Amino acid sequence: MSDSLLIVGSVAYDSVETPTGIRVDALGGSATFAAAAASLFTPVDLVGIVGDDFDLAGLSFVTDRGVDLTGLEIRKGGKTFRWSGVYETDVNIRHTRSTDLNVFADFNPTLPAKYRSDDVVFLGNMLPSLQQRVLEQTTNPIWVALDTMDLWINTTREELLDVMRKVQMVIINDSEARLLTGESNLVRAAQNVLTLGPTAVVVKKGEHGVFLVMKEGFAVLPALPLENVVDPTGAGDSFAGGMLGALNATRDFSLDGLKRAMAYGTATASLTCEAFSIDALKTANRDELNYRYEKLRGIASLPPLSV
Amino acid sequence: MSDSLLIVGSVAYDSVETPTGIRVDALGGSATFAAAAASLFTPVDLVGIVGDDFDLAGLSFVTDRGVDLTGLEIRKGGKTFRWSGVYETDVNIRHTRSTDLNVFADFNPTLPAKYRSDDVVFLGNMLPSLQQRVLEQTTNPIWVALDTMDLWINTTREELLDVMRKVQMVIINDSEARLLTGESNLVRAAQNVLTLGPTAVVVKKGEHGVFLVMKEGFAVLPALPLENVVDPTGAGDSFAGGMLGALNATRDFSLDGLKRAMAYGTATASLTCEAFSIDALKTANRDELNYRYEKLRGIASLPPLSV
Repeated sequence: MSDSLLIVGSVAYDSVETPTGIRVDALGGSATFAAAAASLFTPVDLVGIVGDDFDLAGLSFVTDRGVDLTGLEIRKGGKTFRWSGVYETDVNIRHTRSTDLNVFADFNPTLPAKYRSDDVVFLGNMLPSLQQRVLEQTTNPIWVALDTMDLWINTTREELLDVMRKVQMVIINDSEARLLTGESNLVRAAQNVLTLGPTAVVVKKGEHGVFLVMKEGFAVLPALPLENVVDPTGAGDSFAGGMLGALNATRDFSLDGLKRAMAYGTATASLTCEAFSIDALKTANRDELNYRYEKLRGIASLPPLSV
Repeated sequence: MSDSLLIVGSVAYDSVETPTGIRVDALGGSATFAAAAASLFTPVDLVGIVGDDFDLAGLSFVTDRGVDLTGLEIRKGGKTFRWSGVYETDVNIRHTRSTDLNVFADFNPTLPAKYRSDDVVFLGNMLPSLQQRVLEQTTNPIWVALDTMDLWINTTREELLDVMRKVQMVIINDSEARLLTGESNLVRAAQNVLTLGPTAVVVKKGEHGVFLVMKEGFAVLPALPLENVVDPTGAGDSFAGGMLGALNATRDFSLDGLKRAMAYGTATASLTCEAFSIDALKTANRDELNYRYEKLRGIASLPPLSV
């Protein structure tokens, strides 16, 4: 039993071009965004890998917020994971320019002893066999969530299904849910994922929000309406980090508890989109998130019927 | 001042092919779907045109529910509007096979005297000049909503903008909002439509639900999660009919009132999708709609924050 949320994933440098501007070698990666988001709610234990070209000072804002970086391996002579992409005028459409895994290609996640008893775990998008390795090092966590991508669904499907059977929550986007299940109806696709083992399935739909399927029922949340999307990179990982951070703080894994946590995930994701890289998460605080939670509640909640 | 909702639009025969099956010459048209939906809430005055090939008995279920068909012109020797389309396995994608306007090409909407004082009006998708002609025959309505389509945005833009200045509510889908404003961000697109004159703008996003923009604020509702979409034809018009039917019943045009009405529109649209043509609307009743309203409320509403 531990108070910290365990986050395992990539730490990267992203170069992006959006309609608003260009950023070169900005902080990115699934673990970075998730930890920056989650640390607004809860202490975090991070596991990742970078090269010795990585500027650790860039992460000082998360260590200040209670993120333990003992699990961040710095590979001597190695180069940090780099990703580059461009967004169209409609920022919902993006194209990858390049992906250089560098040290992440040899990532072999190793949990410091103090991390192993963490109760809540986020397995960021990576090879299912690596997610499996993380699980093997943990001591009976109560809530493990995994993210994945089309590449693993296409190339390592069996390994992915095997890990899915061992986790409590699968976080997946709409096209991935369709790809994984071969089901074009998104509700049925999500329900099919549920039959693969997890207790809860969260389907991310980008600007259209998220929905949650459990045996107990559904929950649907819109995204916060954003007039200025500066850079959507990391929105999905910020969502997962915010949601799991809130869950680790509340330990309420009921449908209502997950819905509330999902709303916090939505709030952190909206922050991420409003600036480049982790910039908005860096300066955010709980008041800002509570304000966004209430805003979401206001626009999404329905009055009782009375026509 | 009148108790009835005025609905003006097409009455048609639709032939559709969906993954579930095929229907030939099934009842369709914007006014038909809107009236079938609205009549679950309120009396309706319908204006439309059909040929003498039209089987009036097919509409007896709406006359039973208080729809006045005095304004339905039956053109001797004319043929009823016919539309044909096919839906892909992903029913969100559809292709039109043929559109034969027939008598609808000469539609010149004429309001029976008793319709002219109706307070709430739905101008279904048609030439903006026809929507204008309807408005000229009304006596100071308090809430007029219009629907439109890409064709009129592209070909009769000025006339459309002219009508928009005279109505209280524009109902438009996401791609039309982007086309009309040249704005790829949907929130900004909706806000731009708001500056064109109406008090409220409703953006329909199909399976992703709807959102409402007013000066007073936003409201967002997801669609009801549907495992079996049999035929989405008419879902948009059923939404509009359900929403305006509820509005005509409540006369509550506040943000909350519009949101509640929008939820009823969502409920009626979900019904429409679960069967071919107007079949599900035909057998539905208010209990069923109230049940769906509460279901939507349950999945969409957020508990107060308390992390």
